[in-house]
Amino acid sequence: MSKNPVSLRGKNILGLEDFSPEEIQLVLDSAKGMKNVIHRDIKKLPTLRGKSIVTLFYEPSTRTRSSFELAGKYLGADVVNITAGTSSIVKGESLRDTLLTVEAMGVDAIVMRHKAEGAAAYATQVVSPVIINAGDGAHAHPSQGLLDLFIILQYKNTLQGLKVAIIGDISHSRVARSDLWGMRKMGMEVHLAGPKTLLPRFLKEEPGIFVHECIEDAIRDADVINVLRIQLERQKAGLFPSMREYARIFGLNEERLKLAKEDVLVLHPGPMNKGLEISPRVAYSSHSAIQEQVQNGVAVRMALLALALMGGKQNEADL
Amino acid sequence: MSKNPVSLRGKNILGLEDFSPEEIQLVLDSAKGMKNVIHRDIKKLPTLRGKSIVTLFYEPSTRTRSSFELAGKYLGADVVNITAGTSSIVKGESLRDTLLTVEAMGVDAIVMRHKAEGAAAYATQVVSPVIINAGDGAHAHPSQGLLDLFIILQYKNTLQGLKVAIIGDISHSRVARSDLWGMRKMGMEVHLAGPKTLLPRFLKEEPGIFVHECIEDAIRDADVINVLRIQLERQKAGLFPSMREYARIFGLNEERLKLAKEDVLVLHPGPMNKGLEISPRVAYSSHSAIQEQVQNGVAVRMALLALALMGGKQNEADL
Amino acid sequence: MSKNPVSLRGKNILGLEDFSPEEIQLVLDSAKGMKNVIHRDIKKLPTLRGKSIVTLFYEPSTRTRSSFELAGKYLGADVVNITAGTSSIVKGESLRDTLLTVEAMGVDAIVMRHKAEGAAAYATQVVSPVIINAGDGAHAHPSQGLLDLFIILQYKNTLQGLKVAIIGDISHSRVARSDLWGMRKMGMEVHLAGPKTLLPRFLKEEPGIFVHECIEDAIRDADVINVLRIQLERQKAGLFPSMREYARIFGLNEERLKLAKEDVLVLHPGPMNKGLEISPRVAYSSHSAIQEQVQNGVAVRMALLALALMGGKQNEADL
Repeated sequence: MSKNPVSLRGKNILGLEDFSPEEIQLVLDSAKGMKNVIHRDIKKLPTLRGKSIVTLFYEPSTRTRSSFELAGKYLGADVVNITAGTSSIVKGESLRDTLLTVEAMGVDAIVMRHKAEGAAAYATQVVSPVIINAGDGAHAHPSQGLLDLFIILQYKNTLQGLKVAIIGDISHSRVARSDLWGMRKMGMEVHLAGPKTLLPRFLKEEPGIFVHECIEDAIRDADVINVLRIQLERQKAGLFPSMREYARIFGLNEERLKLAKEDVLVLHPGPMNKGLEISPRVAYSSHSAIQEQVQNGVAVRMALLALALMGGKQNEADL
Repeated sequence: MSKNPVSLRGKNILGLEDFSPEEIQLVLDSAKGMKNVIHRDIKKLPTLRGKSIVTLFYEPSTRTRSSFELAGKYLGADVVNITAGTSSIVKGESLRDTLLTVEAMGVDAIVMRHKAEGAAAYATQVVSPVIINAGDGAHAHPSQGLLDLFIILQYKNTLQGLKVAIIGDISHSRVARSDLWGMRKMGMEVHLAGPKTLLPRFLKEEPGIFVHECIEDAIRDADVINVLRIQLERQKAGLFPSMREYARIFGLNEERLKLAKEDVLVLHPGPMNKGLEISPRVAYSSHSAIQEQVQNGVAVRMALLALALMGGKQNEADL
Repeated sequence: MSKNPVSLRGKNILGLEDFSPEEIQLVLDSAKGMKNVIHRDIKKLPTLRGKSIVTLFYEPSTRTRSSFELAGKYLGADVVNITAGTSSIVKGESLRDTLLTVEAMGVDAIVMRHKAEGAAAYATQVVSPVIINAGDGAHAHPSQGLLDLFIILQYKNTLQGLKVAIIGDISHSRVARSDLWGMRKMGMEVHLAGPKTLLPRFLKEEPGIFVHECIEDAIRDADVINVLRIQLERQKAGLFPSMREYARIFGLNEERLKLAKEDVLVLHPGPMNKGLEISPRVAYSSHSAIQEQVQNGVAVRMALLALALMGGKQNEADL
């Protein structure tokens, strides 16, 4: 196991564009140890005992909020949830004032989700606890990007040089963006495909990034395919082709899967619209690591929290 | 105290029809010890330290959700709540996918409530953590059934041979069903009464079960009367007589109580519609054990969680 | 540090009118120790290990509910949240029955907020756990009053003889009422000002209390100014002058601040309507201790919980 002199102590986790390859590697190494903890009879480390974490969610979420809450608790931290709808957030308090309030309660980290791009970055300028971005609009969702790298590494034993296809609404997806940044940092080749209207304008082809209008071109010989969730609200707004048409042109089915490498790995950030962006057969096939993504999510979030709050990699003896 | 070779380790708690009398007795014995813990200065056992429990509630609840949450915490477990309305459950994720997500987070038990009969049984086929049914439509609510048995046992020192009346909307009541199964297993005689339209068609009289259309016939010489909650939503749908008429014909008042045994015990699963199915005088009389039902609820749920996650009866020395 | 023979063990915290100066001093002394704990690396005391606290909130809240939750957790207690909207409170259960339910779960303290004046006092007549009033309509919010005293004491090193101005909707403010009682008990001189329609009828000038219709008269030579939150819902009901007019006549701005003492301290219970009752410049000026109010809030609430549940002042060695 590599001795990594890098530390993330005090680092705000905003997006993978801010991470060096060494920092990403540190998280992945640490997550490996955390994964062992989760499989033990007693899932409890004293790492964050006496630390407090607030999850501040302006958008509803099951998996991300619960993953972070469990991750914090497995590490011995106190976790308090603040969710729009059951709090004075509904009184129309500004984000700035809510952040100041949370900081003033002496918390060590704020895990936040907000519909506005840049909300987490803004938070780092307002308050001093570690900010962990759990999704800011279409911008970033770094813990998701890290767990995608983590699971790929577990299956493929390397990241460098792998060919990945990301399929769907690239333009509105914070997952796509986080993957893109993380995968490029780790030396992967990224192929993007989706409806023309949903390919981001900001994106120019550059070394290692390829944009396709046709799913077949993107997934040919892929080592990994990441299928994005179609957000039906957007389809209703007319930005999408009809759902039936979408499934026909961009849905990942068994037929198309044959174009990829034989041992291709299929990912999806969940929740899935089965029969739309992915067929049930593919979703539950032996290629799919979708279920394990969630589990790795807890391990990766444990690693992030431990590293950002306590610094260097956990001592092996502790794990 | 009996040496019980039975173990519930890994058992899904779906309904009391799946329990043997010995298994029910094990829970009741264990709950007795747990009750002592709740009355101590320090309500904390290390039994479930390092275990994690998710409460997954698709219907609102104060007492059941809070009871299970406190029960888990008193035993040292980490407890995370997922409630429809503040989670991506609102995004329309299927029950199957939500269950898979929760499982993948490494949790040891899922305590779930869902409006559909059979939802908890379905869950056991989808995921591997222990499933504890906290109410599935009109089907079952086994922890409620167990706590009713527990409190009766505390007052009467036996269950075998007791005569119980269950009054109200039998047809839509998961409490009635759970009681019925549990009480019959323990050798009690069960008398059911309620408006004709609300007596379940599935129910045929069989040894030990008697169906009456008249409350007086059911409660005559009863050792225990369990008054069900009238669900006003159903009354509006015209399935019920008017509320005034209901109170007149089926409401439990002091006059009627005289028909039962002198030391009759009155139960109600709460929350009560006082003046409707039960008169305030009866609800707060010396016969009523309604308040203690809730307290026993925490003890019974501690027993269920400890037994299902750790196996055999807790060592007396630990309690 | 004073040896205080006073104990709050088992005391219900309803309003500061029930406190003696010695009891208030005990809370302030204890909060000082708690504040040190919050600034430690490991924010965890074993004081309330094995104790359970329920927060029962009928009105939404971020800061009060979260402060109490964190305070309880820092002291090692188990904390369970019950909030209207995700619980059977929505089924229309009466406050009495909900309280009885919570008591029956074996909890040691209930922290409650309710829109009705006297709700917390009513609770003490229904159930036996310690009741901590976290706001009952316009009546009282004692932990807020205590934290205002605490922060004033930290800045001014004394309370006796200080001149305080309280500005705004005195009539509907539980904060104003709690401050008024607490400050008078500690020998402070209180000047109230606000729109004529919003000055409470109950209030007669008496020794130490002065009522003004003009903000300038109230804040002249003040040591402390507490600016109340304007509740916009009330303004809409026509009870207020227009917002622009309010800001012009009663808003605290830099110009007006000059009338007070040079080292005047500005407080606000939050969340602020900046530009309305207080100008942003004043809110973020060096006079403002608004941010620290929240932090002190956790320390004061830790002190309240520890004192009410465990009695005398924490041993210094423990802090």
